[in-house]
Amino acid sequence: MMLRVPLDEVASTLAAVLVRTGFEPHRADLCARLFAETTRDGVYSHGLERFPRLLAMIRNGSVDVQATPQRLHQFGAIERWDGRRGPGNLNAWASMARAIELSNQHGIGCVALANTNHWMRGGTYGWQAADAGVIGICWTNTLANLPPWGASLPAVGNNPLIIAVPRPAGHVILDMAMSQFSYGALTSYQQKGQLLPVDGGFDLSGNLTRDPAAIEASQRPLPIGYWKGSGLAMMLDMIAALLSGGLATHQIPTDPLRESGLSQVFLALNLVRLQSAEDSARTANAIVESVLASNPGAVRYPGEQILVTRAENLALGLPVREELWAELRAL
Amino acid sequence: MMLRVPLDEVASTLAAVLVRTGFEPHRADLCARLFAETTRDGVYSHGLERFPRLLAMIRNGSVDVQATPQRLHQFGAIERWDGRRGPGNLNAWASMARAIELSNQHGIGCVALANTNHWMRGGTYGWQAADAGVIGICWTNTLANLPPWGASLPAVGNNPLIIAVPRPAGHVILDMAMSQFSYGALTSYQQKGQLLPVDGGFDLSGNLTRDPAAIEASQRPLPIGYWKGSGLAMMLDMIAALLSGGLATHQIPTDPLRESGLSQVFLALNLVRLQSAEDSARTANAIVESVLASNPGAVRYPGEQILVTRAENLALGLPVREELWAELRAL
Repeated sequence: MMLRVPLDEVASTLAAVLVRTGFEPHRADLCARLFAETTRDGVYSHGLERFPRLLAMIRNGSVDVQATPQRLHQFGAIERWDGRRGPGNLNAWASMARAIELSNQHGIGCVALANTNHWMRGGTYGWQAADAGVIGICWTNTLANLPPWGASLPAVGNNPLIIAVPRPAGHVILDMAMSQFSYGALTSYQQKGQLLPVDGGFDLSGNLTRDPAAIEASQRPLPIGYWKGSGLAMMLDMIAALLSGGLATHQIPTDPLRESGLSQVFLALNLVRLQSAEDSARTANAIVESVLASNPGAVRYPGEQILVTRAENLALGLPVREELWAELRAL
Repeated sequence: MMLRVPLDEVASTLAAVLVRTGFEPHRADLCARLFAETTRDGVYSHGLERFPRLLAMIRNGSVDVQATPQRLHQFGAIERWDGRRGPGNLNAWASMARAIELSNQHGIGCVALANTNHWMRGGTYGWQAADAGVIGICWTNTLANLPPWGASLPAVGNNPLIIAVPRPAGHVILDMAMSQFSYGALTSYQQKGQLLPVDGGFDLSGNLTRDPAAIEASQRPLPIGYWKGSGLAMMLDMIAALLSGGLATHQIPTDPLRESGLSQVFLALNLVRLQSAEDSARTANAIVESVLASNPGAVRYPGEQILVTRAENLALGLPVREELWAELRAL
């Protein structure tokens, strides 16, 4: 049974739980709001559904609720920060905020963050940048969950990459992992008894397949674009580990409940320093319109669907599974 | 018949042709060297084989051999340049060189270049950055040559993206277009009578296919990762057009011989300002080794094969088709 709960009620409920786990109140509020907004935007796998895992990782010591990020090194427009194993979404939010500040001063800003935790929905920090009027690019490494092209054992992460362009008529925000389908998506297709729309990985015999169960069995999801996404995943890991001085995928614990010590990169490009907001909006709109015009109604721009879902969930309340809501309220 | 011609002889032959078309000698030398090095590295489609097209575009007025890039705007670590329709590889080389300079000063540097021409092999500027010891990221937009996901008509470019990480034991350099296979690759498989190793696009009936001829007939190559590469192509175009103030894909002439006025972005991240070269090499090596270890001999890192080809072509001479070599020498 799916309930509909107003955003504010969801956020305050989660915040109260976080305060009881030891968060300072203003940090609890932000952390809770980011979870609630993720569900608001329809990214259910990384919103409320993910909250119990955060609590489990606080309990097992992977996440230190009181740790705040600390700057280790600065050179001009680039900075290296230590996340000190604090809550991943708070660390990431602070890092993108700092990258935006740096871009105000230098035109471009880069924060490399080591020693952090899962940032939950990566798109959050794209929306953060776009809402501030800057172009945002960020990515994270992850535990090894994807076989590189040519191998059957996981050795790269799916390393989500977010690219955000501000646009008054609707930000354009790409939020994509390097695997064609996440394990969450595979499970979802399987529960509905559906095949994937395109090949999503290999079966146990090494054949490409659209059967989600076969991919879960083989643990061989496919990188986007085969060898290309495999290479891109590796590059993102290298840059994150090099710039941050933190761990690379091969050093991150493979137990998802201990997936800590991640490395992330946050870039902000300050368009406002280059041209008027009107010129930017005109250019962005013309590009979006030209792409959508290639097949009106069928082609979407990245982020388009989120605004539709967001409006619906704000009007009706956030959809929350009844059992999950009871569990969260009892914490 | 394939000849083997020493690199220097190839470069000086091309340079002499360029001088006769009006290039200043030092610019002719660099332009010619970049073409020769592309063939040296095995990227034959964008080396000497591409040179006649440059000459055609000089003759039809798309490329101005004497134009040098001009800085229009600077704010801190980010600059906007006008390529003035000069030779694409010289403009791109100058832009990455400037991004590297900016990164020496600011830790990170960004050059956005408008109004330029085809940069030939994008990987060139990745090697340029890595040879200078910095992380390089660059991309270009192109004419519309790829249907976005959900459409059958081209409305995004295949917008090659290059990511380069310096490593003393062999730079790690990804050079990838947003289409799963270029038209050049499709032709090459077709000439050999081979099917593609994976689906590369749609046939005229709208079914995914590995038949390169069917994709050439439909003009519907596949973006990497389906909707993901389609979205990524759009983001790269948006950022390039917005930062440079130049043209977006929908504004670029669709005749390949008139594909001019491109927008490009060059980013340099100066690792040297953050940690020692030894620390960087250790981290980079460990990542490369961890990925290759997932299936030794079968998994490659991006750029690995280039070093093998480069060594062979330097030892034996560059492979050049006899007819092409006769044509180039007669120019």
